Amino acid sequence: MTVTDERLGDLQTQIPNASIITDPDVTESYRRDWARDPDAGRPLAVVRATSTEDVQAVMRWATAHNIPVVPRGAGSGLSGGATAVDGGIVLTTELMRNIEVNPVTRMAVVQPGLINVEVKRAVAEHGLWYPPDPSSFEMCSIGGNAATNAGGLCCVKYGVTTDYILGLQVVLADGTAVRLGGPRLKDSAGLSLTKLFVGSEGTLGIITEITIRLLPEQAPASTVVGSFATVQDATNAILDITRVMRPAMLEFMDRASIGAVESGMNMGLDLNAHGMLIAQSDSPGEDRIRATEFMAKVFHDNNASDVFTTDDPKEGEAFTAARRFAIPAVERLGNLLLEDVGVPLPALPALIHGIEDIAARHKLLVAVIAHAGDGNTHPLIVHDPTNEDETARANLAFGEIMDLAISLGGTITGEHGVGRLKKGWLPNQIGEDVMELTRRIKSALDPQHILNPGAVI
Amino acid sequence: MTVTDERLGDLQTQIPNASIITDPDVTESYRRDWARDPDAGRPLAVVRATSTEDVQAVMRWATAHNIPVVPRGAGSGLSGGATAVDGGIVLTTELMRNIEVNPVTRMAVVQPGLINVEVKRAVAEHGLWYPPDPSSFEMCSIGGNAATNAGGLCCVKYGVTTDYILGLQVVLADGTAVRLGGPRLKDSAGLSLTKLFVGSEGTLGIITEITIRLLPEQAPASTVVGSFATVQDATNAILDITRVMRPAMLEFMDRASIGAVESGMNMGLDLNAHGMLIAQSDSPGEDRIRATEFMAKVFHDNNASDVFTTDDPKEGEAFTAARRFAIPAVERLGNLLLEDVGVPLPALPALIHGIEDIAARHKLLVAVIAHAGDGNTHPLIVHDPTNEDETARANLAFGEIMDLAISLGGTITGEHGVGRLKKGWLPNQIGEDVMELTRRIKSALDPQHILNPGAVI
Repeated sequence: MTVTDERLGDLQTQIPNASIITDPDVTESYRRDWARDPDAGRPLAVVRATSTEDVQAVMRWATAHNIPVVPRGAGSGLSGGATAVDGGIVLTTELMRNIEVNPVTRMAVVQPGLINVEVKRAVAEHGLWYPPDPSSFEMCSIGGNAATNAGGLCCVKYGVTTDYILGLQVVLADGTAVRLGGPRLKDSAGLSLTKLFVGSEGTLGIITEITIRLLPEQAPASTVVGSFATVQDATNAILDITRVMRPAMLEFMDRASIGAVESGMNMGLDLNAHGMLIAQSDSPGEDRIRATEFMAKVFHDNNASDVFTTDDPKEGEAFTAARRFAIPAVERLGNLLLEDVGVPLPALPALIHGIEDIAARHKLLVAVIAHAGDGNTHPLIVHDPTNEDETARANLAFGEIMDLAISLGGTITGEHGVGRLKKGWLPNQIGEDVMELTRRIKSALDPQHILNPGAVI
Repeated sequence: MTVTDERLGDLQTQIPNASIITDPDVTESYRRDWARDPDAGRPLAVVRATSTEDVQAVMRWATAHNIPVVPRGAGSGLSGGATAVDGGIVLTTELMRNIEVNPVTRMAVVQPGLINVEVKRAVAEHGLWYPPDPSSFEMCSIGGNAATNAGGLCCVKYGVTTDYILGLQVVLADGTAVRLGGPRLKDSAGLSLTKLFVGSEGTLGIITEITIRLLPEQAPASTVVGSFATVQDATNAILDITRVMRPAMLEFMDRASIGAVESGMNMGLDLNAHGMLIAQSDSPGEDRIRATEFMAKVFHDNNASDVFTTDDPKEGEAFTAARRFAIPAVERLGNLLLEDVGVPLPALPALIHGIEDIAARHKLLVAVIAHAGDGNTHPLIVHDPTNEDETARANLAFGEIMDLAISLGGTITGEHGVGRLKKGWLPNQIGEDVMELTRRIKSALDPQHILNPGAVI
């Protein structure tokens, strides 16, 4: 028995209910999230925690032995936030799947391993709605959503994950479990630590329980779709809408995305358009019709063609499905490097045209879909991973798109997080002083830097 | 010239545009906020900053000389967050009053000295709305709102201050100015430092600029008012409403508040009622009528009398005005110790009856108004400050009400902040482990503890 094995044996006695996996055939599948980081390390072990107490024991043990711990939810992250590190523990919360819904207070207490759609379904049984809806909502975990402050399509009206988190239980680096916030709709007592841990990507602590607030179920939505000859026309339409009303969804697809979707779905989309917008209103009652008519008029006023409106949620869902299908449709053309840069809305044309230039320069296909209403875009960089040269060009484009977003006053990540893939660009966005502030907080909370080392900072 | 004066002279040369006030007749009015802390210290000077650079110079100077700095907005705080400390600087941002509204992106960049209502008015000129509406909106500053994460009446539907802050410029203890977040609706890049500084009550840095997001102007609201024989009936009505819809306002007044308002306004309120609810819907179009009828039915179903509904915003405003008048109306009966404890909604009757018991035990009048929709209450403890015994009993009641809220799973402060008056109770609410976490962050960011010492921790 090696020293390493003795340490793991010691850990196993402290967490009898959790499995500690060292079989390389199994640990292999825990080395990477969807970012498929080529530099992923080989973990000492994967620990499948079953409780907050398990997580505490792992962190106490990791502190004692100075062993890095990478927390992992469903592994659907796109920035390499859950990439394994050599000799570390991958701590997965996938088995922690309880939920308690309180329909009277419109809240729920959720463990991190539950999938986003499972949370949505569990609360829907009580006539309630958990809004945040990442495109990956059928496979991403609520714990990962909290760790990255995940977004989605309805954020333009309903906000992002942090807006729905009232409280957290978090295990700190030394194994202490703390409760931050709680089931209180308003609470100004002490520092906003709940909000600090949301989006901290496992670098400050491991989230083991989440108290979320819920809304009454969403009203049915009407849908407006339109094709635009230029990105500027589409952007003008977006601004004309968001200036005066709050659509429940406002999504954009560029020419390449339209083409990819059309070739897979045969919906009769305009292949000559340089932008397509899909907008929804879930305004109650007759106002929904008025909102839809208004958005259709804005589309027409901004030279849209093929403007189609429907108050039938099923017909509308077909277009939402088309938009959600864009990523797999483009993925048929090759592997994807999936970006999520954001810019202030008026800079959207400059971003999209700049991306076209980058794609042309590197001889790459880059399709762009966007949560257009809040300026958050997903450039999809297509490449063949067996083609070394093309992969190198894709990686260059990945970085240049972030540089471009920063130069336009934007962000390198609107909803995926920094992880490991984007951390080289973080200082350029937030500046050295804010990096230093970040490091000071990190060191105060995790002095040994054993929590997700290499991520974010 | 004393050593002290030399130091101030040195500071003045670095901030030629700012006034440094040492005249005791003037500094006296900067020693306390509305909490009227009897233990307020005597400051070395009051500095009226005119720019971020002024604030930086003050903090560099304060760091060099190890002098405490208490940041101050409009001085309308109710927890003693801006109480002066002996030998320190009171740094007021009241002269920093610029605002730039961007109607295209529905955002504004605001300096901290602007009054909340001035922000509302400036953005309303562009057809936009800044929702957070503390009862003190006509005199509290937007900087103070950010520092305390202030709430208000519309929060039940529209959220609190932090939900509207996209970015901050903050001056740290050592004088470094950092920009956190920015004009981006979604941003997951790095730690959520913006959210950490919101509600930090000047203990981590001094806010010198705020980027806020705005909404399209609010639709006109309909109003429902009803009187209830018991607090339980009123609470049941609240829960029956919030379970299925989102009112734009849902306010409560107890018997004592109703009496005080009626004696001042002669509105014909039911003096025998033990609770009155004022609810509003700002749902668009015809749905507003439906929402109002639904709420009126819920009132009736929960045994309300005198149920009155109106779709006339001016008639509705009379009831909102009555609710806002409750604090000055009760204040006619004596000085107020103004609480803002909150509880999960089902515990509202237990809280209000517990407060009645505390009031009876200490032979005090305690009137209760509440932002009932989110469980945030304002017990108003009436006392005669010239009566030492009564003042002592009022202070005892102030603490016992916080103990009660904590025992019911609530918070000692829903929107005012901890300041100095409530800090003795903070560990009981959040626990020693979270206090330790708080101190670690505080020490990492302000190692000399010169920023608002004595507040919160």
